[in-house]
Amino acid sequence: MAVTIKNIADACNVSRGTVDRALNNRGKINPEKKELILAKAKELGYKPNYIARSLKRGKTNTIGIIVFNLYNEFFSSLINSMEEKAKEKDYHIDLALTHYDKDTEKKCVESMIRRQVDGLILCSVNNKKDYSSWLQKFNIPVVSLANKISNKIPYISVDDRRAMKDATQYVADKGYDRIIYISPPLAYEDTHNIYALKQRFEGFSQVNMEHESIIIESKDYIRELETINILEYKTAILCTSDIYALEVLNYLKEKKIKIPSQVGVMGFDNINMLKYIEPHLTTVSYPIEQIGAIAIDSISQAIENGNKIQNMVITHEIIIGESL
Amino acid sequence: MAVTIKNIADACNVSRGTVDRALNNRGKINPEKKELILAKAKELGYKPNYIARSLKRGKTNTIGIIVFNLYNEFFSSLINSMEEKAKEKDYHIDLALTHYDKDTEKKCVESMIRRQVDGLILCSVNNKKDYSSWLQKFNIPVVSLANKISNKIPYISVDDRRAMKDATQYVADKGYDRIIYISPPLAYEDTHNIYALKQRFEGFSQVNMEHESIIIESKDYIRELETINILEYKTAILCTSDIYALEVLNYLKEKKIKIPSQVGVMGFDNINMLKYIEPHLTTVSYPIEQIGAIAIDSISQAIENGNKIQNMVITHEIIIGESL
Repeated sequence: MAVTIKNIADACNVSRGTVDRALNNRGKINPEKKELILAKAKELGYKPNYIARSLKRGKTNTIGIIVFNLYNEFFSSLINSMEEKAKEKDYHIDLALTHYDKDTEKKCVESMIRRQVDGLILCSVNNKKDYSSWLQKFNIPVVSLANKISNKIPYISVDDRRAMKDATQYVADKGYDRIIYISPPLAYEDTHNIYALKQRFEGFSQVNMEHESIIIESKDYIRELETINILEYKTAILCTSDIYALEVLNYLKEKKIKIPSQVGVMGFDNINMLKYIEPHLTTVSYPIEQIGAIAIDSISQAIENGNKIQNMVITHEIIIGESL
Repeated sequence: MAVTIKNIADACNVSRGTVDRALNNRGKINPEKKELILAKAKELGYKPNYIARSLKRGKTNTIGIIVFNLYNEFFSSLINSMEEKAKEKDYHIDLALTHYDKDTEKKCVESMIRRQVDGLILCSVNNKKDYSSWLQKFNIPVVSLANKISNKIPYISVDDRRAMKDATQYVADKGYDRIIYISPPLAYEDTHNIYALKQRFEGFSQVNMEHESIIIESKDYIRELETINILEYKTAILCTSDIYALEVLNYLKEKKIKIPSQVGVMGFDNINMLKYIEPHLTTVSYPIEQIGAIAIDSISQAIENGNKIQNMVITHEIIIGESL
C-alpha cells in the first residue's frame, strides 16, 4: 500500500495541511516540525503521487512524441536522442507510432491530449491549415520535425531543398550525365504530408543534367528500375533515403552491375549502419540526433517559460563515399 | 479551455452527478435525458480528463518500458512491435532508456511508479533477489525480456544457452577446428545483469572443439583480435551479437582476410539490416518482435484480469548465410 499524507500526519500527530506544507516547502511551519515530518516521510517510504500533483499543477512533465515507425534507423536515432535529452530535463516520453496513417496520427494526438502531455513533437503525416489549427486549439507547445505542417507550427529540420540541390550538383560535378531519381510517391501530396519529399524534389529539379532525368516515384521502385536501361548513359541513381539506396545497391549487385564504374548511387540521411555497407555509400548527412536534442530543448523551454519556439534549420553535409 | 462536466450540466440544466451518470453509463438516469446529455457533450467537444479518471479508477492504461538504448536495431524493433500491440490493446507506452546504467534504471522505475504505470516491461541491467523484491513491492505486473532478473519475475526470451550451443555445434559441424568467441565482459556478473550473456557462454562451452577456443570478452574486441594469429587454425569467429559480427567483418575486410575461405564469422540476433551486408552473415534468429508482442499481451491480461504471467521460451533458429 502506498504511504499517504494522512499516514504521515497520523504518525507525526499533526494535521494533513501541516504535512502538505512540509513536503511542498510552502506556507508557515515550525522548522523542527518540518524536519520531523520530512524524516518520517522518508522513513515510511512516502512517494508523492505525481498524478494527483499533475491535476493540481496542471503539468505532467510528459512530452508526447509521434513518429512514423522505428523500422528506419533514422527514427530510432531520433527517439534515442530525444529520450536522453528529455530525461536530462526531467521529462518523460510518451511514444506513439502512426505507420504513415493520418487517422492513427490524429487519434494519437487526441489520446495524448487527454493524458495531458505538456507538449507534442511530431513527424507528421497530416498537413494543411486545418490540421495546424486543430493542433493549435489544444493550447500546448507543438513542434514538427522533418515534415513541416504549416507556417503556424514551429519546424526544425535541415533545408531539404538545398540539401538535395547540393546532392544533385555533386552528382553532376562527378561527370554523370543522367540521373534516375527515386522517391516515395509525390502524388500523395493532396492526401499526405510529403513536405520534405517535395522540397527535395524541387531541389533536385533545379540542377540541369545533360540527358533527361528519369523520375521513379513508387514504392515498387526496384520493379520500375528493372524496366529501364540503366547503362544507356553515364547514369547515377539518386535516392531520397539511404534505405532506398541500400535496396538499389542490392539490386545492382544482383545484376552484377559495378558500382560506381558502371552506375553511381547516392543516398540521403547518413544512417549509422552505413559503416557496414560496401561500397561505402555517398550520401547527405541529416543530423537527426542534434535535431532531436534541439526539439526537446526548445519545447521544454516553451513549456516552462512560455517561450515561442523558433523555426530552425540545421546544416547538412555531403558525405563522400565510394558509390559515386 | 477544456469543456468540463460543469459546463455540460449548466448547458443541460441538470446536476453534475447526472452528467457523470450519463457519461460513465452508470446509475439510474432517464434515457432521454441521457441522450440529451451525450449529444450536448459531443456538441461542446467534451473530452474526459483521463488523469482525473485515472485517479478514480486506479488505472492509467500506460505500460512502462525500460530498455538499454535504441542504437541497436534489436531494441528499436522490440519497441516498434510493443507499441503496435499496445495501441491495439488501448495502452500507451512510457519509454525510458538506461544506457546500461543500474542507477538510471532504478530511477526510471521509481519515476514510472510515481506516474502510476499499470505494468512494467524491462530489459534489466539490475539483477539479484534484492532487485526483484524491490520491483515486487510496487505490486504491479512486471515482465523481464532478454535478461532474466530472478525466478520471481516472469521472463520471456529465447533459450540463450541452447541457442548458442546450437550455433557452436553448427560451427563445429562446418569443419572449423577453433573458435574465437567474442562477448561483452562476463566479469560484469557481480555488478550487472548479464544473464543472457552468461547463458550463451555456457552453451558455447558445452561443445568441444579440436583446438582450444580463445575467449575475447572486452569492449575493445577488435584490438584484442589484432593480437591473435587468426589464420593459425581453421578458425571461426563466433560473436554474441550481429553488431559485433559486423565490426569483425569490417576488420577482416580491412585486413584482406577472405570470408569464409580463410576465416568464418557467425553472429547472433538476425537483425533486419543484415540483408544489406556482404557476405550474408550466418547468425541465430532472435524473434524479438514476437517477444515484444507476447510481452504486451501477457502484461495487459495480467493488468486486467490479474492473470499470473508465465515464463515463456520462444524458438530460435540458425540462419544460414555465406560467412561460415
